Amino acid sequence: MTKPLSPGATIGILGGGQLGRMLSVAASRLGLHVHIYEPAANPPASETADRITTAPYEDHDALTAFAKDCDVITYEFENIPTEALDLLEQHRPIRPCREALRISQDRLTEKGWLADLGLQVAPFADIKDAASLDTALERIGAPAILKTRRFGYDGKGQARINAPEDAADALASLNGAPAILEGFVSFTREISVIAARGLDGRVACFDPGENVHREGILRTTTVPATIPHSLATDAVLMASRILTALDYVGVMGVELFVTDTGLVVNEIAPRVHNSGHWTQNGCQIDQFEQHIRAVAGWPLGDGKRHSDVEMENLIGEDMDRLAQIAAEPGAALHLYGKAETRPGRKMGHVNRLR
Amino acid sequence: MTKPLSPGATIGILGGGQLGRMLSVAASRLGLHVHIYEPAANPPASETADRITTAPYEDHDALTAFAKDCDVITYEFENIPTEALDLLEQHRPIRPCREALRISQDRLTEKGWLADLGLQVAPFADIKDAASLDTALERIGAPAILKTRRFGYDGKGQARINAPEDAADALASLNGAPAILEGFVSFTREISVIAARGLDGRVACFDPGENVHREGILRTTTVPATIPHSLATDAVLMASRILTALDYVGVMGVELFVTDTGLVVNEIAPRVHNSGHWTQNGCQIDQFEQHIRAVAGWPLGDGKRHSDVEMENLIGEDMDRLAQIAAEPGAALHLYGKAETRPGRKMGHVNRLR
Repeated sequence: MTKPLSPGATIGILGGGQLGRMLSVAASRLGLHVHIYEPAANPPASETADRITTAPYEDHDALTAFAKDCDVITYEFENIPTEALDLLEQHRPIRPCREALRISQDRLTEKGWLADLGLQVAPFADIKDAASLDTALERIGAPAILKTRRFGYDGKGQARINAPEDAADALASLNGAPAILEGFVSFTREISVIAARGLDGRVACFDPGENVHREGILRTTTVPATIPHSLATDAVLMASRILTALDYVGVMGVELFVTDTGLVVNEIAPRVHNSGHWTQNGCQIDQFEQHIRAVAGWPLGDGKRHSDVEMENLIGEDMDRLAQIAAEPGAALHLYGKAETRPGRKMGHVNRLR
Repeated sequence: MTKPLSPGATIGILGGGQLGRMLSVAASRLGLHVHIYEPAANPPASETADRITTAPYEDHDALTAFAKDCDVITYEFENIPTEALDLLEQHRPIRPCREALRISQDRLTEKGWLADLGLQVAPFADIKDAASLDTALERIGAPAILKTRRFGYDGKGQARINAPEDAADALASLNGAPAILEGFVSFTREISVIAARGLDGRVACFDPGENVHREGILRTTTVPATIPHSLATDAVLMASRILTALDYVGVMGVELFVTDTGLVVNEIAPRVHNSGHWTQNGCQIDQFEQHIRAVAGWPLGDGKRHSDVEMENLIGEDMDRLAQIAAEPGAALHLYGKAETRPGRKMGHVNRLR
């Protein structure tokens, strides 16, 4: 299927979190229906999507019925079981492609693939056991971070090694999960590029944003990033190279470190990305609509920014400030409809024009 | 109830058309649920709202259950049967107020009320029969327009009288409905002010937009309007006076004619308005969120505009240009999810930054 979807067609989305929710809103704006597939009951996206299937990824009947109801399938997170994807793909195209998922699901595969593409990445090593960790620490040095190869997000599944004697505890904390050791990169700032590629192979990027993390969770993204124009161009070219190498269709988040020796790729996410939420208020066509346009085979927007923006995530107890934020005349609030506020839980974000 | 609604609360909306749809999206962005009440099956808003009741306005049980499920009730159109409103109001507050509905439901009442407030309106007369029409035509002169007092929209329920001999046919075309004769106003342009008033009595207005109609239907709204700054200020002050006089809570569309003797009020609509759709891409907080904020008791946004915008309605066969519009890099498309395209039917709109 290479023809653009017509209004009235249905996009299937695997995952019903806030990203699925905001994708649903963007799809409805283009007259497209959304069917969400999500194991958990009453997820954030259920409110804004047209249809929802509540079933586990092991339910073959539910997966088949879901696929048949959709014209194309996309996803809002990368850790989807391979068997479910195999089954879905028998019925409908999955965009972005399986290869992007395979690579980004595994930190070790991802680092290797990016390095093979000729891009700079942090020093890394495959960790199978205590012996390989010792060898890796000798080569990479401490401090370093031991991470599970799969299923990590927002700083989870990670242990910092400050000195070789921390190695055993760090390894034990991962409970035997396959792991990767990553060396620290000495960077001045972290930026990210939200890039999109259409079915026609055209690439469009939003301006790089500058990210600030705290406790492993993104706190703010500011555009424009305080980097020279030449570096912004480099970042966009690198992102474009990654998408084109994958024959990618959709939006990807590419996180980069700014270092003295140029840009180092931190990680890629084959989906809309928290650091791209500023586009909702800084651009005519935001990252969510851009992703929907790509997977629906529509022409992409050009990514042009009309305003400078600071995006602030509202996490856990940040919700105590809600009344105050709601009273800021120029603050665009985006809440995710989550009933329960928990420490570390992303409840919403606010975009402020600068 | 004067406390602001908390996220998780429910706003009831009477009417499930495109205005209800876009109000739903705005409410979900603030973490508020929406329950739509609409007699027709599968209306545009059903896709983006959390809950929907499909029942006629004469179904007292359905109305009562709907009201009890909501924290506050608002509406997307003005022709709601009085009896239904009486019943709903026994259970929950209706915002904007009943008085605004009573006045705007009837062209004659509206013109009289605006004139009593000291605002300029077109010459008008109550038409009960052929004799009163003759008398009115003598005073007001031809050309003039005979309109039904109630239930008119988008140019429907109107007959133009070019000369006294057209009077009988014009009157017959209204099938005996109570009518008003309105004289023509010689105007250079039509503008509208989208004004909002909060529970706290504060008023915020968006910049006046300049409207172009064709065949009685709005085609484009452009901001800023090409009028002197002093006139823009007058328009905003007039709108503010109307809202304050009504102790209004919510967004109102105020249509004004620009004439040699100043601004003449054409009509008021006690709801979000087609001529305010540009705010979706020209402002941080658009008319839909502004209305939701008002009826939810939240502080209003300030109405500040960050970009110049032209809004174009997509009506009937305009949908043939969809592929072309989708390919304009800076065109923000908003479709209403209507399955069937019909001549004269509003299918969507597009906002272009200028």
